[in-house]
Amino acid sequence: MDGLHCRGCGRHNTARAPEEVQKSPQQPLDYLTEKQSDFSADLIELARIPSISSLPEHAGDVEKASKWVEGRLKLAGLEDVTVLETGTQPAVFGQWLHASGQPTVMIYGHYDVQPVDPLELWAVPPFEPVVKDGFYRGRGVDDDKGGLLQPIQALEAYLKTVRSLPINVKFLIEGQEEVGSPQLPALLRKHKKLLSCDYALSADGSQINEQQGGIAIGLRGAVAVEVEAQTVDSDLHSGVKGGSVQNPINALAQFIAGLHLPNRTVAIEGFYDNVRDITEEDKADFARFPYSDDVEMKSLGALGPFGEEGYTTLERRWLRPTLDVVGIYGGFQGEGIKTIIPSKATAKLSARLVPDQDPEHILKVLERHVEQHAPPFTKMTFKLLGFRAAPYAMPRDTLPNRAAAKALELVFGNTPLLYREGGTIPAMALFREHLGVDMTAFGFGLPDDNIHAPNERYRVSMFKKGREAYVHIFQAIADLGSAAAARAKEEL
Amino acid sequence: MDGLHCRGCGRHNTARAPEEVQKSPQQPLDYLTEKQSDFSADLIELARIPSISSLPEHAGDVEKASKWVEGRLKLAGLEDVTVLETGTQPAVFGQWLHASGQPTVMIYGHYDVQPVDPLELWAVPPFEPVVKDGFYRGRGVDDDKGGLLQPIQALEAYLKTVRSLPINVKFLIEGQEEVGSPQLPALLRKHKKLLSCDYALSADGSQINEQQGGIAIGLRGAVAVEVEAQTVDSDLHSGVKGGSVQNPINALAQFIAGLHLPNRTVAIEGFYDNVRDITEEDKADFARFPYSDDVEMKSLGALGPFGEEGYTTLERRWLRPTLDVVGIYGGFQGEGIKTIIPSKATAKLSARLVPDQDPEHILKVLERHVEQHAPPFTKMTFKLLGFRAAPYAMPRDTLPNRAAAKALELVFGNTPLLYREGGTIPAMALFREHLGVDMTAFGFGLPDDNIHAPNERYRVSMFKKGREAYVHIFQAIADLGSAAAARAKEEL
Repeated sequence: MDGLHCRGCGRHNTARAPEEVQKSPQQPLDYLTEKQSDFSADLIELARIPSISSLPEHAGDVEKASKWVEGRLKLAGLEDVTVLETGTQPAVFGQWLHASGQPTVMIYGHYDVQPVDPLELWAVPPFEPVVKDGFYRGRGVDDDKGGLLQPIQALEAYLKTVRSLPINVKFLIEGQEEVGSPQLPALLRKHKKLLSCDYALSADGSQINEQQGGIAIGLRGAVAVEVEAQTVDSDLHSGVKGGSVQNPINALAQFIAGLHLPNRTVAIEGFYDNVRDITEEDKADFARFPYSDDVEMKSLGALGPFGEEGYTTLERRWLRPTLDVVGIYGGFQGEGIKTIIPSKATAKLSARLVPDQDPEHILKVLERHVEQHAPPFTKMTFKLLGFRAAPYAMPRDTLPNRAAAKALELVFGNTPLLYREGGTIPAMALFREHLGVDMTAFGFGLPDDNIHAPNERYRVSMFKKGREAYVHIFQAIADLGSAAAARAKEEL
Repeated sequence: MDGLHCRGCGRHNTARAPEEVQKSPQQPLDYLTEKQSDFSADLIELARIPSISSLPEHAGDVEKASKWVEGRLKLAGLEDVTVLETGTQPAVFGQWLHASGQPTVMIYGHYDVQPVDPLELWAVPPFEPVVKDGFYRGRGVDDDKGGLLQPIQALEAYLKTVRSLPINVKFLIEGQEEVGSPQLPALLRKHKKLLSCDYALSADGSQINEQQGGIAIGLRGAVAVEVEAQTVDSDLHSGVKGGSVQNPINALAQFIAGLHLPNRTVAIEGFYDNVRDITEEDKADFARFPYSDDVEMKSLGALGPFGEEGYTTLERRWLRPTLDVVGIYGGFQGEGIKTIIPSKATAKLSARLVPDQDPEHILKVLERHVEQHAPPFTKMTFKLLGFRAAPYAMPRDTLPNRAAAKALELVFGNTPLLYREGGTIPAMALFREHLGVDMTAFGFGLPDDNIHAPNERYRVSMFKKGREAYVHIFQAIADLGSAAAARAKEEL
């Protein structure tokens, strides 16, 4: 378990098994150094293409970016490179399968980017990327154009120097991650055989900070619903009728206020069914994670941490389920005042789920709660919104996690930390469901890269570190894979 | 107290004092019958002008309507007819002051109208008014073009037949009632002498139903404020941070839910200061008013009446103060879902006030409540909105009320009911403040005329009834005025 924390004790196990000794891929690493300015040019070139998947007017740019990725995969030496049509934004596939007896690793990434509004907040035009003060600056330089280029460049380093890879690889670079990967399930089903693999790595991900690597071993799931409170057929005059009929905003406010108990747990019967207790092992992980409530709350402009009683901030974010109102509207919203009692008011709710909560069950108990807790004289309606993902937790001790830990230790110079994330990446659960593999996030963005926001940036140092880390992880997977195979043989 | 209910006993006093015997203004009434089709044409002509005061692109139409009214006042025989500029929508003034020794009555109305959207819901184009099935149909035919024409036509009937009026009259027909009469206070101050009068009637008002006349002796006042809850500097990712900081929508919902106690009284300290108790006299008025909760709730599409415990619907609407949320917004409001915790959420609140609540005091206790009841880790801000009117209650037994009762009894054939209204008409309080007179609402719309809504309409029968009622009320004021003067003389 090199580079990971052993179960139970919570302390780092520094013993290194003899079969896991690092082989040095020096030639590919030298190639990376040599080609540094070309690789930098790759990112500038790709980030110039405004491949915004959510805006139909950029469909041509999305197409252009997919072609660019197709060309880059071929140039690196991948084979069978092909564009897989989805009906909307295409995905790009490529493979190299000549490492006989070695595992096959799928590498996932996406070439589409977020929109750029508000444009006036950008210090540089978002699609005229530059390198400045140690950062690439522009839309997509981190998420995920910088990310997807690293494994391609690492692969090229092997193929152009030692003429082979230590493992077999497949690439799936999609173009609709930023719109929730709606056609990804169908694509995974349709090309199941082509995409089959032993392990998967996501080039879309991040590290803890510039000095500290980490491996996220869990993500929260999510469901989203809309509830509407209606009390009268149409808007009424607030003077003429005010005080004599239920006001739907008051009713909805009462409903929302009733969603939590005073200790801030969710007051919905059955909501906590199947929630796993936080283990001592989890607590040990969290204790190691560099985090301070004071620093965090100051940076958010929050008056303080606030959440379920009896839990720390990291526990609340990573291993406790939540129910938040993400939007509300009803009645008059313009300047000044319009004296009405509105006929209805609407709230959008999103729950974040943790292992082993079941999204379907949560939707059921939510709907039942809405039915049973309608405020007086209020018709409540319940509507599903298209956002549903299972919580995701991977085993701590998988072969790609161990390989990732080894690679991160080599590039960071210290032991990576295991942690979790509060967000949701649908592809993770989809890969498990359709391809039967867990996906290890192996990306090199940092939390302050402003992804999805103006002034997205990516550290030149992290772009370099990521390329090197991919060289190392290819080798580490091969080493661990061979060792595992040897062990299996001995045991026969 | 002819036509009114005597104090205390709650039953109608049918005794008629000898000095109040009705003089019959038969010639003017005959004139009205004779001119019926011309008067109908007046309304069609005026209602063709799209004088929407809230839309700048209709400024020319507002101007055109003011000119039309100016011409019509002259045609009727009024003198000193002039347009009084306000800087925006002008008011039209005219007078006839030759009834020596008689009181001077100001007649108030407005020629501007509400916008017409949504246009697709109109059965006839709103500015191509027609007469159909016993109704005038078009924007403004009730509110207030039909209303303002009645006293003009009644006045013309006197001046064209008996060549004089029994009383002195002044007209002030404004053009910005539908935008809250923002320049009316300045206009009343500037022309205080020109506008001075003994009594005032509003041609903007309504009756209870086609068979039953009524006099509104009270209106609620109003204040409006905006409260904003902020918990973090900018929107956060609901997955990454959800459950660890206060959500401003949850906080605002909790704040709103805390505005009322379980018995639905307003939970703000000092809110009920100076609220007058409902008297037996009020209760007797309300008991006479034709109203049924079943019919009303069905027509509103409400599941039932809902309000402050221990009060009836009419009491809740007319003599109890209320606090309603008229609008709320925060976070994501588009289609589907955006997974954020918003940084802030906003609600617009409007309180309706009853005698003797003081708007300034209510704003003060509201602001204090917001300061003292901010939910945990929430910054609450408080902002005044430009809507503030004192509650209005006039004495039951004023000379114009008695005259109105007499006139209504003559046209309806039964005793008018005293009632109150839940809404607010700023002009009422402004006339009292600046001209020192109470204003008796003497209009002939009905509650189902769809004012401020698509398919506004006005009954041909009520337009006729209103003209006749104005002929009667002019005479009644003269009769009651002479009798009062005679009584005063005797007492000297």
